[in-house]
Amino acid sequence: MFMRLPISIQNLINEFTRFPGIGPKTSERLVFWLLRRSKLQVRIFVQALLTFSDEIHACPVCFNFTNNGDNAICALCADPKRDHSSICVLAECLDLIAIESAGYNGLYHVLGGTVNPLKGEMLSHLRIKELIARLTGGITEVILAFDPNHEGEMTSHYLKQELKGFGIKITRLARGLPQGGDLDYADEVTLAEALKGRREV
Amino acid sequence: MFMRLPISIQNLINEFTRFPGIGPKTSERLVFWLLRRSKLQVRIFVQALLTFSDEIHACPVCFNFTNNGDNAICALCADPKRDHSSICVLAECLDLIAIESAGYNGLYHVLGGTVNPLKGEMLSHLRIKELIARLTGGITEVILAFDPNHEGEMTSHYLKQELKGFGIKITRLARGLPQGGDLDYADEVTLAEALKGRREV
Repeated sequence: MFMRLPISIQNLINEFTRFPGIGPKTSERLVFWLLRRSKLQVRIFVQALLTFSDEIHACPVCFNFTNNGDNAICALCADPKRDHSSICVLAECLDLIAIESAGYNGLYHVLGGTVNPLKGEMLSHLRIKELIARLTGGITEVILAFDPNHEGEMTSHYLKQELKGFGIKITRLARGLPQGGDLDYADEVTLAEALKGRREV
Repeated sequence: MFMRLPISIQNLINEFTRFPGIGPKTSERLVFWLLRRSKLQVRIFVQALLTFSDEIHACPVCFNFTNNGDNAICALCADPKRDHSSICVLAECLDLIAIESAGYNGLYHVLGGTVNPLKGEMLSHLRIKELIARLTGGITEVILAFDPNHEGEMTSHYLKQELKGFGIKITRLARGLPQGGDLDYADEVTLAEALKGRREV
């Protein structure tokens, strides 16, 4: 006998399964956990969602998120102390946080994804026009900072084609052994890249 | 350099980490995924949460969830076609769904957890008084259906003590090999239980 859940529970389970990495079983667990919370605790969660949704928008220049009021550029784009001659191009805002914590001090451009031919996602959904529009004002270097995988490689490759007419230096992040890594556990592609990119000490 | 996230993003990340099984990293991923959704999609999620929170409450008899209006008993308790002589006692509503799909047709009692001495959780947070109050009207059997682990065993043990004065049959779910299981992968406790509970064929 299959038990029908009340529609409001089923609906919420469906909503949770939309999140990345959350399947039906996990979603069910989250909703049943919420069942045991007080109505007040659900309200606090809802309020956090609404405040987030109201305050946060994409910067119209770099497409990073910002809470600087509607249509205002973000703090990073507005900061005169940052190096306004280089743009680091990333797939997602999360990558921006990683690069920022590594000490990069230039500008950013959040592309909004990568090329993925298997899903039929080529260049049209990416913010390439917007990137090209930014290449006029004193930009001397574009750093392509994508995940070191097949989609990242392809995106770098396509972007290089799109950007090569502008006489701007195009670089990508170095490949090699990660800090704290294990030489005999490294895969051959990483090792080959580490050899190719070896430096005098 | 560490990048400070806008407070509304940080808040929402904190809210997501309250959910079971969601750590800071997963939470960050969920929130950054939400960043890329439209405001409308966030509203739909919020609406699902609010409808759920408004409609669903605990049945005052069995403490299963219900959407049968405020303080009304749930459809399972109200159903005259169900066997009103047995109560299946469970830790959580999720367990109820599992037992229900196995074809059980009696009543339920959701205890609200299990005994867990390591966390200092003994009997006081469980709905035992409410269970005892139900043992008057023609109940002939109480089925203890807890997870087959240490907490479940202890809860069964304590409940047996609490219920033994009522002259009601107290049973627990059978132990043994799960359907589709592998004999040589079964642990020794399961095998011992399977041997003890062997049946003529």
